[in-house]
Amino acid sequence: MTDFNLSCPIPLEQYPHVLLAHGGGGRLMHQLINRLFAPTFQSLGVQHDSTVLNLPTGKIAITTDSYVIHPLFFPGGDIGSLAVYGTVNDLAMSGARPLYLSAGFILEEGLPMETLWRVVQSMQKAAESAGVRIVTGDTKVVDRGKGDGIFINTTGIGIIEHEQLIVPTAVEPGDIIILNGDIGRHGIAIMAVREGLEFETTIESDSAPCNSLVLELLAQGIEIHCLRDLTRGGLASALNEIAIAAGVTISLKETRISVREDVGGACEILGFDPLYVANEGRFIAFVPEVKADQALKIMQSRDRDSGIIGRVTGKSRKSLGLVTMESKIGTTRIIDMLSGEQLPRIC
Amino acid sequence: MTDFNLSCPIPLEQYPHVLLAHGGGGRLMHQLINRLFAPTFQSLGVQHDSTVLNLPTGKIAITTDSYVIHPLFFPGGDIGSLAVYGTVNDLAMSGARPLYLSAGFILEEGLPMETLWRVVQSMQKAAESAGVRIVTGDTKVVDRGKGDGIFINTTGIGIIEHEQLIVPTAVEPGDIIILNGDIGRHGIAIMAVREGLEFETTIESDSAPCNSLVLELLAQGIEIHCLRDLTRGGLASALNEIAIAAGVTISLKETRISVREDVGGACEILGFDPLYVANEGRFIAFVPEVKADQALKIMQSRDRDSGIIGRVTGKSRKSLGLVTMESKIGTTRIIDMLSGEQLPRIC
Repeated sequence: MTDFNLSCPIPLEQYPHVLLAHGGGGRLMHQLINRLFAPTFQSLGVQHDSTVLNLPTGKIAITTDSYVIHPLFFPGGDIGSLAVYGTVNDLAMSGARPLYLSAGFILEEGLPMETLWRVVQSMQKAAESAGVRIVTGDTKVVDRGKGDGIFINTTGIGIIEHEQLIVPTAVEPGDIIILNGDIGRHGIAIMAVREGLEFETTIESDSAPCNSLVLELLAQGIEIHCLRDLTRGGLASALNEIAIAAGVTISLKETRISVREDVGGACEILGFDPLYVANEGRFIAFVPEVKADQALKIMQSRDRDSGIIGRVTGKSRKSLGLVTMESKIGTTRIIDMLSGEQLPRIC
Repeated sequence: MTDFNLSCPIPLEQYPHVLLAHGGGGRLMHQLINRLFAPTFQSLGVQHDSTVLNLPTGKIAITTDSYVIHPLFFPGGDIGSLAVYGTVNDLAMSGARPLYLSAGFILEEGLPMETLWRVVQSMQKAAESAGVRIVTGDTKVVDRGKGDGIFINTTGIGIIEHEQLIVPTAVEPGDIIILNGDIGRHGIAIMAVREGLEFETTIESDSAPCNSLVLELLAQGIEIHCLRDLTRGGLASALNEIAIAAGVTISLKETRISVREDVGGACEILGFDPLYVANEGRFIAFVPEVKADQALKIMQSRDRDSGIIGRVTGKSRKSLGLVTMESKIGTTRIIDMLSGEQLPRIC
């Protein structure tokens, strides 16, 4: 394991801030790579243009995501851990075993070097906890006022070790939809920091890796039709995307969707609907009814707030799709995809 | 082949500029993906969290690069083609056959939609000419003033189909160093646009894919010890990196290094040394002396300015390395790595 109590390996009295030259291809860039990135990520190939890897199988999954979250640090995480978990989770949603990540940094001139160091350490910590390796990287520096501290792109590669086709088009009427915990915490945690709101308790982001849970479901023989993480656009948008792609109607029960009391209260104050708030460690699984209880038990063993939130009720005309929800008081309403945007730069 | 004379598929009267909501996870983001990105890149997996690919072999190369070049368009290229060629070339420098790219966009709110459309088309055109496919993507939008138009990350995956180990540590005394053309054009082209300089002729960037030439060298049985593209830091920094990693001394002949007259003149006016100016379609190959003439012929068949620019003269103490150059008038000087930065945001 990496020791995370080291002080910044770049001499801070000499370079307290990131300079344009740290991305310029010369000595300072090499110092940054050799002293800060390479030892922390224990990378094989940072000195060379690309990294050569041996993959145990021919079927791989690839995904990319840029992280531009503001603020960089928030209760329950930071841009570094988010950049690892977000991409790991995207791979997990294909049922892949995440193996390798690349990390591309766009730094703003003047960024405190100490901030970069905290973020890089957090990335490595997150990578270790998710069981992936950061194998190649890149650093660019843009002029002050042309960026915002740190943007990170991570691209992930995973291998697919099973024969299931986990895609929206595999969803069929009768499928049960299971959610792996409560929703809304990530978005509200960010909003609270950004707006300087204080609640009785600190609301922490749900940011976490989901790969180990997904792989356990597969290992336990659960047939999974589709998986989707609930990031930008929240639960409502994820369900609509799948309903449209699969051409199905989906029915939810509001009482089954877990929203923590403080999160629900914050949503009410802020005028947000928790169904549209972003999460970073939450996903939905579409499974056949016969496997639903077994899947639920596995998911509840990780998070007791996991629950069966609804089902696929029938076919719709393709490229339409319909999501409805039975409310706490028994009425039914249509749950549409997010239009406009609720909260920018949430991930 | 893709038709590149299409008009922008996003209704410009309605959305002349990129909005924060185009990265928000809702309807506008889906419109951007479904109408603009997916049809242009002909992507398989843009609707899903990750893309599943079949790779024909277990040995792969991976590389990542973010592109923050300013200005976005320049003589001989733009950020889109650069983002493809730069990453393709990094893979080629491992002797890999580039296959797949991911594309992560960080857009600034207010970016003209037409600009995005031009860049995306250019990327696809470049991908087709380099023989790679853009298979997965991501879009984030940051507030006005927190980015600079477009930043692009591309991460590339290639396969390695040969048994050679093409790395700096394979370089040995006696190796001949061949350069695949003239140097300095990319950096000077950017500088000219940025500073509003006008020369008698327009200096065009050398931005181009190098993978097909590298694969031809390998197919013709050339033993290659090391390859390196000459981007940030230019020829001088690339040679120093390799000399240090291999622990060798390198001797160059200035007369053998091709610099176009207009580029040389511009360098003199601007106070630049062409050895340190960035290129985007240039690389050096380290080959054993016995294969040098054959390699040179292959390289000259693509660009007659290719030439043998120097050789590895001996071992140095590891982590030292030394690059010297015999000048046109017969004197010898040390060529150091770039210190500081010559030209920010060149790629």
